[in-house]
Amino acid sequence: MSEWKNFDTLTSYKELQNAKKVDLATVMTGENGAERVKKYTIPMAAGMTFNYAAKQVDDEIIDLLVKLAKEAQLSEKYKELYNGAVINTGEKRMVLHQLTRGQLGDDVIADGVNKREFYIKEQKRIAEFSEKVHSGAIANGAGEKFTTVCQIGIGGSDLGPRAMYLALEGWAKKNNKFKMEAQFISNVDPDDATAVLDKIDVAHTLFILVSKSGTTLETLTNQSFVMDALKKKGLDPAKHMIAVTSETSPLAKSDDYLEAFFMDDYIGGRYSSTSGVGGAVLSLAFGADVFADFLDGAAREDGLAKDEDPRKNPALMDALIGVYERNFLGYPSTAVLPYSQALSRFPAHLQQMDMESNGKSVNRFGEPVNYVTGPVIFGEPGTNGQHSFYQLLHQGTDIIPLQFIAFKNSQWRNDVDIEGSGSQQKLNANVAAQIVAFACGKNDENRNKEFKGGRPSSIIIGEELDPKALGALLAHFENKVMFQGFVWNLNSFDQEGVQLGKVLAKKVLAKETDGALAEYSKLLNI
Amino acid sequence: MSEWKNFDTLTSYKELQNAKKVDLATVMTGENGAERVKKYTIPMAAGMTFNYAAKQVDDEIIDLLVKLAKEAQLSEKYKELYNGAVINTGEKRMVLHQLTRGQLGDDVIADGVNKREFYIKEQKRIAEFSEKVHSGAIANGAGEKFTTVCQIGIGGSDLGPRAMYLALEGWAKKNNKFKMEAQFISNVDPDDATAVLDKIDVAHTLFILVSKSGTTLETLTNQSFVMDALKKKGLDPAKHMIAVTSETSPLAKSDDYLEAFFMDDYIGGRYSSTSGVGGAVLSLAFGADVFADFLDGAAREDGLAKDEDPRKNPALMDALIGVYERNFLGYPSTAVLPYSQALSRFPAHLQQMDMESNGKSVNRFGEPVNYVTGPVIFGEPGTNGQHSFYQLLHQGTDIIPLQFIAFKNSQWRNDVDIEGSGSQQKLNANVAAQIVAFACGKNDENRNKEFKGGRPSSIIIGEELDPKALGALLAHFENKVMFQGFVWNLNSFDQEGVQLGKVLAKKVLAKETDGALAEYSKLLNI
Repeated sequence: MSEWKNFDTLTSYKELQNAKKVDLATVMTGENGAERVKKYTIPMAAGMTFNYAAKQVDDEIIDLLVKLAKEAQLSEKYKELYNGAVINTGEKRMVLHQLTRGQLGDDVIADGVNKREFYIKEQKRIAEFSEKVHSGAIANGAGEKFTTVCQIGIGGSDLGPRAMYLALEGWAKKNNKFKMEAQFISNVDPDDATAVLDKIDVAHTLFILVSKSGTTLETLTNQSFVMDALKKKGLDPAKHMIAVTSETSPLAKSDDYLEAFFMDDYIGGRYSSTSGVGGAVLSLAFGADVFADFLDGAAREDGLAKDEDPRKNPALMDALIGVYERNFLGYPSTAVLPYSQALSRFPAHLQQMDMESNGKSVNRFGEPVNYVTGPVIFGEPGTNGQHSFYQLLHQGTDIIPLQFIAFKNSQWRNDVDIEGSGSQQKLNANVAAQIVAFACGKNDENRNKEFKGGRPSSIIIGEELDPKALGALLAHFENKVMFQGFVWNLNSFDQEGVQLGKVLAKKVLAKETDGALAEYSKLLNI
Repeated sequence: MSEWKNFDTLTSYKELQNAKKVDLATVMTGENGAERVKKYTIPMAAGMTFNYAAKQVDDEIIDLLVKLAKEAQLSEKYKELYNGAVINTGEKRMVLHQLTRGQLGDDVIADGVNKREFYIKEQKRIAEFSEKVHSGAIANGAGEKFTTVCQIGIGGSDLGPRAMYLALEGWAKKNNKFKMEAQFISNVDPDDATAVLDKIDVAHTLFILVSKSGTTLETLTNQSFVMDALKKKGLDPAKHMIAVTSETSPLAKSDDYLEAFFMDDYIGGRYSSTSGVGGAVLSLAFGADVFADFLDGAAREDGLAKDEDPRKNPALMDALIGVYERNFLGYPSTAVLPYSQALSRFPAHLQQMDMESNGKSVNRFGEPVNYVTGPVIFGEPGTNGQHSFYQLLHQGTDIIPLQFIAFKNSQWRNDVDIEGSGSQQKLNANVAAQIVAFACGKNDENRNKEFKGGRPSSIIIGEELDPKALGALLAHFENKVMFQGFVWNLNSFDQEGVQLGKVLAKKVLAKETDGALAEYSKLLNI
């Protein structure tokens, strides 16, 4: 069994604190910079690469990070996690999302069930169901094929699946894998459900209700919205709706659904894209084979994360450098910048995954920690971001570490040549240019046009954003966040910080308020 | 003429530095909290309210902020700006976006033209053109009505207009103001244009090319994409495309466009939503009367921003509190959290407006400043954010100030009653609950379930997100950012920080690279 210690009690913490800082602009300029690009690189799954040449590290810092990984027993902790230890101490649960896509270690038995077999069984059930929907064997009340799938869920039941759908929509259309359009209803704001229902052909839409507990108020409210809309059109809701939930939830055996698919308490919402939560909507939209490839990419990346040597383990190295930036360089946020329009909502998903996992002030034993933990995560696709907030990234008073993502090829392979280059070339020329501009800067007599440089970034480069690459990308960040949680000695798998708001909202609705809450309720006409 | 001084040379800077900090959890608890909600409130235009009760301020701090506003001559500077002073010192330009929606002071004459009259003339030309498109007097080559409008632009030509379109789409549909669907192409990633062109009915689409200079590479590239697509369908691009540009641009008198509408160098991209940049697409989508109402809301808010008393000037108070949080409380980022799904892209627009304006390290004279300037801005709509990154906002190690936005009524007025309350009530109960949860926190013996509170927020509350309210909201934030730039002694209206990346990207495309840039180019297959 590994030992869980606060980060600031480790020897490597003090060593990192005292280590000489790297002057990034200096080391990245000239031939030394070229050498770093060649050297500081780690292969990922699906033909991708993690390159950290433009991070504020050198061999000495990396040696200390390697030492930290060992001292904090990060690989042992990962092993314990995937072998079924109760890593989520707050909720006393195992953490098994890696098991939804592969067997990394021992069999994990819970509630008398082999959990890997359970996840495979559900994946197969979803695959069979999807095929029947695509063939028309399962159809609407009039016997007509469903053309649209609409997920009703919030948080992890929305952001991840939505980001994955958008990431693969173009790829699927190009590669004749596109089966059904997907839409998503998430917000309790009635304008969300109304706008989506206004746009879709309800009579040919299959709705997926996603709630692990079966009690998420926003989701149940939106279900009622949808059921009302179906009934108003003379349709039977039970013929238009399936559920993804846990076996113990009130939705599991309800007549309200055509079918129910299961996940369990060992899959956190923000880690559920590779379970039925992502599986149902992605299998329906693109076919079960596409979803299987997505899982395969994730499983391979999970495998790479087992390597004890951070120099060969991209998620681990990424995690360690992030911790170094946060705790020793003092950078409070990180921007995720995919140079791929298909990843437009990927930063929003990472924002949840990272900030909800590690945005905590107490360690896994409930004791306050004396160091900063998870950063703010934000981002938009490049080149759009370049014409937006990059001004601050280049010349603002704070330094924001950057995470670039790029692909050699576009998804659609449709391009146009202007001024001697294609759009994909321009896109990638921009990301290369940005990395160097951020790292090296530029002197100018006009201080307004001066770039100090020293702004660190890493880049993940893939061949093409296909299902395997997307799976690998997702797993990379899940594992990065996991390793960082281990370093900070946090429980990355609960979210007690969302509870107080829920409790107070119920009081407002029950008119049990006083003080400021009563006044705000008045202002808001509640 | 006002004097431009660095913030840290002001007397009020030192006074604010030494002022006693407010314990927010204490002052917001009990009856005192209720009193604050009633007291710390300022009326805005369009029936909205800015409430800052849950900010970390008290009468003493506010007195000092009022003093700061006077000492820094913020109202005089605003007056100079709208009367046509060359506030954008770097580019030697006036800053006239307020003039696109109203006359706040003296006539502004530039290049021999009364600029207010110029903006009105262009607005009228757009209105007439839009009406002809709606009536079918202007139609496609086959004489059929255009059904879709598609904006091609990036940065300010994309984020603002897109956010405004999404904000009013539901309102327009509900109120029979919806004329044409709008789509947007922005990214140089070829997958962006390809995906949009795949979705729309190109033969019935009117494209708007938006580029002030007429030389924006991303936009011209996407124009070629679109022209190719039109030609491939046997259509004449010149019958499907209009331009919004400056009169001196190469696009202004080109035969490639059905018509060209003009803005000028005095309208920064990120402040251009109320010029033709937003005007063309919004007038086409919703009608010129809707756009006029949007301008009216903005003009009224601009008028409120003239008040010299911050206690009566919502943008000024918001700006001053933001500066206080940034420079004296040390908070590095701000989250914008609209409880309105229609504002889904409003935070992305504010992210550009704020970070590109004030993400700077030198003052307006090109001298480095010794204090932090613009914060990181990010956000997503509530309640979605609650199920995502709010964990960190509540229990993370850093404090992130929050900007809530909410409306008493939904846009569609379509609702469903579940557990005794409607969705809109639930939505607003959540925002009320969140403000108090963030401010007051909650003790718990289990430290993992403890909320320290002390996390400041303000809220803007409106009746309904209609065109006037949206205009007022936009102007509020534009003016807030402007006042903050004045305090920090920045030029908020240039963006030199985006230049270096452009220069290096050209070198990559021209294969004129060495060192790290050459290596990255290889990795990216350029």
